[in-house]
Amino acid sequence: MAKEITIYDIADKVGLSPTTVSRALSDSPSVRPKTKEKVNQAAKSLGYRSNIFAASLRKKSTHNIGVIVPRLNSSFQSSVLAGMENIASQAQYNLIISQSLESSKKEQTNALTMYNSHVDGLLVSMAENTGNTDHFKPFTEKGIPLIFFDRTPDEPSSPSIIIDNTQAAYAATSHLLDQGCRNIHHIVGNSGISTYKNRIKGFKYALMDRQLPYTEEQNIYSVLNEESGEEIANIILQIDPLPDGLVISNDACAASCIQYLKKKGIRIPQDIAIVGFNNDAISRLIEPNLSTINYPGYEMGEIAMRNLLLRLSENDDSPGTNETITLKSELIVRESSLKK
Amino acid sequence: MAKEITIYDIADKVGLSPTTVSRALSDSPSVRPKTKEKVNQAAKSLGYRSNIFAASLRKKSTHNIGVIVPRLNSSFQSSVLAGMENIASQAQYNLIISQSLESSKKEQTNALTMYNSHVDGLLVSMAENTGNTDHFKPFTEKGIPLIFFDRTPDEPSSPSIIIDNTQAAYAATSHLLDQGCRNIHHIVGNSGISTYKNRIKGFKYALMDRQLPYTEEQNIYSVLNEESGEEIANIILQIDPLPDGLVISNDACAASCIQYLKKKGIRIPQDIAIVGFNNDAISRLIEPNLSTINYPGYEMGEIAMRNLLLRLSENDDSPGTNETITLKSELIVRESSLKK
Repeated sequence: MAKEITIYDIADKVGLSPTTVSRALSDSPSVRPKTKEKVNQAAKSLGYRSNIFAASLRKKSTHNIGVIVPRLNSSFQSSVLAGMENIASQAQYNLIISQSLESSKKEQTNALTMYNSHVDGLLVSMAENTGNTDHFKPFTEKGIPLIFFDRTPDEPSSPSIIIDNTQAAYAATSHLLDQGCRNIHHIVGNSGISTYKNRIKGFKYALMDRQLPYTEEQNIYSVLNEESGEEIANIILQIDPLPDGLVISNDACAASCIQYLKKKGIRIPQDIAIVGFNNDAISRLIEPNLSTINYPGYEMGEIAMRNLLLRLSENDDSPGTNETITLKSELIVRESSLKK
Repeated sequence: MAKEITIYDIADKVGLSPTTVSRALSDSPSVRPKTKEKVNQAAKSLGYRSNIFAASLRKKSTHNIGVIVPRLNSSFQSSVLAGMENIASQAQYNLIISQSLESSKKEQTNALTMYNSHVDGLLVSMAENTGNTDHFKPFTEKGIPLIFFDRTPDEPSSPSIIIDNTQAAYAATSHLLDQGCRNIHHIVGNSGISTYKNRIKGFKYALMDRQLPYTEEQNIYSVLNEESGEEIANIILQIDPLPDGLVISNDACAASCIQYLKKKGIRIPQDIAIVGFNNDAISRLIEPNLSTINYPGYEMGEIAMRNLLLRLSENDDSPGTNETITLKSELIVRESSLKK
């Protein structure tokens, strides 16, 4: 690499003292505007890098925010990241992003790397098999703000941004009941993940509130991606009597399941009414259009980042620091569930 | 924040000299394994952060790689990022990610931020209105590896990873010609972007090679997202005579366009045969299933990152440093284009 340009090089070029150059670069009021302009032009022409990095070491701030997500190539998570980046870049913070690939072990490594890189704060959506949050303790112990989003610990010791997953699944299930469905199954992810655990609750409560039977067998567990749609369809087709309603926790998976069921001669919604989750583009393009829960990923990212930056701007811990922020989600009814 | 733990604190705790502690932490052979274990345990219990950050300043390496993409919430770009992260994290590098939001001005700001954060290398997919690459010159001048991917400059002064967009559009267009289409239109993005400029060439050459007329009016420019599908459909419906084939440079846009054309009574592929681009999940779920170009985003991310890390591990510039790596793409034929 080429030699790093210092304020001494700039001082040489403009014929001023290094002290004056340093003051000019930090926009000190003691330096005349004309001098500042001269210094800044020289800095630019020499390729000087404002020494954020060394300054960071002194100030103990890197202006880097760490983000750990289960997978980067997820429609939901990429919306969240877009929202986070939008807020962070306005405040001149960088995002350092890593993915746990749904592995608790990789999540631990990611956390350690973020810690050793001295991130100013950390935003986490947890991997499916992460049992405890011990690997995030070094952050809280050092007073580095930590916020969980979407997939959060059971008993969060840190602030969390979520949607009310219990309520969302309750709404989806109740809608199918209103349409006359009486044999509803629930396709859902690993119940170790907070989001799915709560959706199972919502599904159950909706049935219970109508005095309808609920059994654990009504939950069918899946990785919930496009590829698993066919597998789920095959499981459904073997249930006797055939279910008349499905709540599927992911739109891409629901769309692929619908496609396969249709190939097998099942009419949607007449034979089986279906509600998805996320309001992805695919829900508006599959035939019949998919009823779904609008899950505001971009907004969740913006709010999580705003909240983290707020904590960074505060010098001490504010009261109510472990609150949970719950975003509004809503059921969008389309043809895939309209029996009436 | 809590006070930063130093090697002096560890030395106090274990009753050894700071020099021994420092050697133990850096796994020096001059320290006995038992002592190392003792020091490492004390470091862990005190919450010591291995000082990558200060060490980075000395070594002039941050182990951070910058990535600038047009948009984070893009199915293609999130696959690319997932591939990059996979390779980077194995080599213990972090990704610093920012989005230009298709603004050349924001891209310039992003580049400056990355430069001032002392990233070890930079990977860029350019914004649509970026006319020149002057804002990346500080990187090349300082010997910081810079690689463009997908959307690259016209005359790259840095290595580029792309697919052969000319060939891909040529294949899509030739396939429609083979199906008997003779009035084909091309829905494409801003021709200032390398990918689209080359697809326009491919479209044109395919027609010319069959001695068929080509006019600039056959290209219809669009932002190519789900929302623009209806707008494009309306433009197509007003063309007289009605086109019998469309090459649409994005699957989500093509799917939404198909949906709207069907609503208006157009039969796909009988009236209009359609080929998309990217092989997104939506291409496999829309009816009829969409013929498309398989565009290997994850693989592109992996290769771009591997290439960058290779450059970082080399001390001097290797020969052929500005080569272009072209990945294989392929036409996948499905029902949306099969007239015969």
